[in-house]
Amino acid sequence: MLTDMDISRRAPLKDIAVLGAEFGLLPDEMQLFGKTKAKVDLRVQQRLAEQQQGKLIIVTAVTPTPHGEGKTVTTIGLTQSLKALGNKVCACIRQPSMGPVFGVKGGAAGGGYAQVVPMQELNLHLTGDIHAVSNAHNLGAAAIASRLYHETRLGKAEFELQSGQNYLDIAPNGIRWHRVVDHNDRCLREIEVGLGENNGPAYTSGFDITAASELMAILALSRNLADMRARIGKLVLAVNRQGAAISAEDLGVAGAMTAIMADAVKPTLMQTLNGAPCLIHAGPFANIAHGNSSVIADDIALKLADFVVTEGGFGSDMGFEKFCNIKARQSGLTPSAAVLVTTLKALKANSGLTSDADINAPDQARLEAGFANLNWHINNVARYGIPVVVAINRFATDTDAELNWLIEAVAGTAAFGCELSEAFSQGEAGALALAQTVMRACEQPSEFTLLYPDDMALEAKLSTLAEVGYGAAGVSLSEAAKLQLQELSALGYADLPVCMAKTPLSISHDPQLKGVPQGFIVPVRELVLNAGAGFITALVGNVMTMPGLGLVPGYLKIDIGADGEITGLG
Amino acid sequence: MLTDMDISRRAPLKDIAVLGAEFGLLPDEMQLFGKTKAKVDLRVQQRLAEQQQGKLIIVTAVTPTPHGEGKTVTTIGLTQSLKALGNKVCACIRQPSMGPVFGVKGGAAGGGYAQVVPMQELNLHLTGDIHAVSNAHNLGAAAIASRLYHETRLGKAEFELQSGQNYLDIAPNGIRWHRVVDHNDRCLREIEVGLGENNGPAYTSGFDITAASELMAILALSRNLADMRARIGKLVLAVNRQGAAISAEDLGVAGAMTAIMADAVKPTLMQTLNGAPCLIHAGPFANIAHGNSSVIADDIALKLADFVVTEGGFGSDMGFEKFCNIKARQSGLTPSAAVLVTTLKALKANSGLTSDADINAPDQARLEAGFANLNWHINNVARYGIPVVVAINRFATDTDAELNWLIEAVAGTAAFGCELSEAFSQGEAGALALAQTVMRACEQPSEFTLLYPDDMALEAKLSTLAEVGYGAAGVSLSEAAKLQLQELSALGYADLPVCMAKTPLSISHDPQLKGVPQGFIVPVRELVLNAGAGFITALVGNVMTMPGLGLVPGYLKIDIGADGEITGLG
Repeated sequence: MLTDMDISRRAPLKDIAVLGAEFGLLPDEMQLFGKTKAKVDLRVQQRLAEQQQGKLIIVTAVTPTPHGEGKTVTTIGLTQSLKALGNKVCACIRQPSMGPVFGVKGGAAGGGYAQVVPMQELNLHLTGDIHAVSNAHNLGAAAIASRLYHETRLGKAEFELQSGQNYLDIAPNGIRWHRVVDHNDRCLREIEVGLGENNGPAYTSGFDITAASELMAILALSRNLADMRARIGKLVLAVNRQGAAISAEDLGVAGAMTAIMADAVKPTLMQTLNGAPCLIHAGPFANIAHGNSSVIADDIALKLADFVVTEGGFGSDMGFEKFCNIKARQSGLTPSAAVLVTTLKALKANSGLTSDADINAPDQARLEAGFANLNWHINNVARYGIPVVVAINRFATDTDAELNWLIEAVAGTAAFGCELSEAFSQGEAGALALAQTVMRACEQPSEFTLLYPDDMALEAKLSTLAEVGYGAAGVSLSEAAKLQLQELSALGYADLPVCMAKTPLSISHDPQLKGVPQGFIVPVRELVLNAGAGFITALVGNVMTMPGLGLVPGYLKIDIGADGEITGLG
Repeated sequence: MLTDMDISRRAPLKDIAVLGAEFGLLPDEMQLFGKTKAKVDLRVQQRLAEQQQGKLIIVTAVTPTPHGEGKTVTTIGLTQSLKALGNKVCACIRQPSMGPVFGVKGGAAGGGYAQVVPMQELNLHLTGDIHAVSNAHNLGAAAIASRLYHETRLGKAEFELQSGQNYLDIAPNGIRWHRVVDHNDRCLREIEVGLGENNGPAYTSGFDITAASELMAILALSRNLADMRARIGKLVLAVNRQGAAISAEDLGVAGAMTAIMADAVKPTLMQTLNGAPCLIHAGPFANIAHGNSSVIADDIALKLADFVVTEGGFGSDMGFEKFCNIKARQSGLTPSAAVLVTTLKALKANSGLTSDADINAPDQARLEAGFANLNWHINNVARYGIPVVVAINRFATDTDAELNWLIEAVAGTAAFGCELSEAFSQGEAGALALAQTVMRACEQPSEFTLLYPDDMALEAKLSTLAEVGYGAAGVSLSEAAKLQLQELSALGYADLPVCMAKTPLSISHDPQLKGVPQGFIVPVRELVLNAGAGFITALVGNVMTMPGLGLVPGYLKIDIGADGEITGLG
């Protein structure tokens, strides 16, 4: 079989202006970026305001393993097969981060014959949205640091006299806004800034990866540009010496930050290998961030397509949970069905196996042991009141015996159906049965249900998410988190929903606990206010909001020829 | 008169695909970004390899003042008037940095009726080149820091065993590669990174503004993608414990860094208000960086146009000097004429006046005193063997008497000619005489001459630049600079040309010394190797490679409406 890159390069691409027109966009609603990408102008939202919505399908997975479950492959494969069956369909996915692209994972365009193309453009800059988020975020950081500098240098009276602005009384330890960069740069996790002469005062700070920026969550959750502007105004950049929140609006930087994101608010249209439209918007990392694609992209796609396929990162405890309790809660755009991706390898790995040889070999006992993880995720998704279709992403080495056992085992669960997906090797022909079952699932009666109501207290939300959402015995707050809980309550933000940043490699907080962990207590290390995005992030266990590069980083195999051809991507 | 933004918004724009075709580009040589921007594919270089070159005109200025001399206005105005006279012409300018856009200065698209449009797109992301430089640069930084982390953690034997890579023996104090961000963020000038548990070892580092990145100089100086790839391979990211240079190639990250810049290597085509083509490429800041637009853009423009107008930032001691001794030296693309921009205000400010009222009032004595600065710059440009045309950028408050005196005074200098420019208020009609005189200047015999030969020793180059280039009595090296000179010589880089980073506000290193300073000694604080760009940067006096935000930053007046209209830019 060809490499992903070769398949992408050889694909006959439809001119994106033609594809967009067929999708239902007017020429003036598309801003072309070459022949393969177009930004979609938000005027289309007004034009289609009264249009009936299609069905939203959310793709999630069992607890992920290093072997790759193929969630994006299945998302794109399902989209391709829905198109092959004659449906109007659109995929809504997130822009890949360059952190993993150059770190270890490779691209995030799907793979094999289920890809968004050209994958090189998707995996690198796309149309610059992540750069815009980085840049807008770091303007906020420069602004609050500079205000600290000038206020400290001049004192209240002189500052107000010379600047014509109110003295905010910011202290170095009151700054709450990190900086961001779209790479895995471990040594920026904790830094001391403002050193040297006349650059201070010094304070301890750090960088997160851009996908973890609150601005990325705002991009994902805003309904339109005006909503984004209002949310950016609410960003809390610091808490002053009197304990008052200092917002981006207070600092006068919210308009400029939004101006930097004026183009980023528009989703980017690309295509799958068989010419289905795909909207790319917002960023990944449903472990450390909200990590879902955007409300705006879903909204536009649901007006133009009968079926919209989106994905939540990692297992159903991660991206799917955030999709429901944050994104759907805020947007009101609720799913008609869920697809839960699994593989034989993933189940064996979830039984505790680690070596490639063990995982690739038939092993009924291990498969049965790992099945508990799948069943947990089926029940977890069903709890939200929507039908669940299990998609078994087939690998070439999978045996029929094991596949058949798994299909039968799923028949005894709460799942609505179960189908093999061979989209990776067969493209649009490989997920036709899955597409048909998903179409039937979308016709089922469903009642989308959130895990907790808006007006529950913050601590109770944390407990509910841990106990019901992860099956924990409870949560424990660090001393720092307890103080932060007090600060958040005093600032009036205790009614926000909760976004837990935790390892995706276990349903629990501990990546070593495979299968269906029980009896564990979720340790909340830190609480971070996201006043603009509208949630509180709880950092759990050892989770880091800045990854590091591994010992054998992905960039080693990447190069470019004199003709501009990039090798080693994806 | 309308604001710059209103003039830009009301301008009837030509579809960039049509403009590009009229300019001589084939459809496949343009990658469209909407209707107003297109990246130019470098295949055009091969197609036009045998084409005769047009004339290159470099626009420079007297020592700049806070009042604005209008160098970009004159560059664009001259381009517009050359077009109005029926010439095939192209402007080649640099992409603005968001640091000044949100800091204090506003945009860099020209102004009034001499603008590149749409100015909003030019001043914000353009086609993402600066973002690509930031991102590629910071991947290099993450790579060297991560290598330090893994080598330190594992030691030589384990590192080589586990990673399959050579142990480079990097020490924390051997890292030579900063990080960059495209904002004015003072508190990042000096930072300590790698703090906290398992993120180290800690080392002292800092951020520069992206325009000061060596990658930006490489983008400007490369002849093509293969040249850029080779230069990025030569970047020295660290010096190890044995004193050996560790390059981006040694680290295996050069290919990935270049891949990130695969689109940035293509210049962006835009247009002036009267529809003349304009290529935008590379970054600004000829004080702290090389700061000239790109060799690639010049090369393409010279094949397609009879006249190419480019600019060197700040006074002729800054951008023009670097244009000659670095860019023209490396590329062989030499200028046929120079335009030296001055204003009445600039000359009075260069006489030592500071208040706006004083500078706007007629004052013959001050004008005559400030004239010395203009005369110095005329002689400085003439030293390079090319004809100099003085352009007096006229302000509404200028009196005829003072303008006439200045025109007569210039007649007694080494200048080839002197014309008023009223491009700001009159557009293409405002610089016709200037355009005609520049066309005549281009017909003059000229012999472009560099300030020093390639094979002069590094210290002698520093002295020559200071003494001949700035009129100093000599240079002095700090103890740190002396050690760095030894290191550079030991590494074999002592034959590179010199790029001095100094204040642009005086011909000397001291911004307080106005007019024509004499007898000063240029204090070299630090020497920085740019092995890929091919020069040594000497940091002089107090110059900073990361600006700070002022007390009343530019972002305060910037906002965006629900319709996407940005206010307060430029």
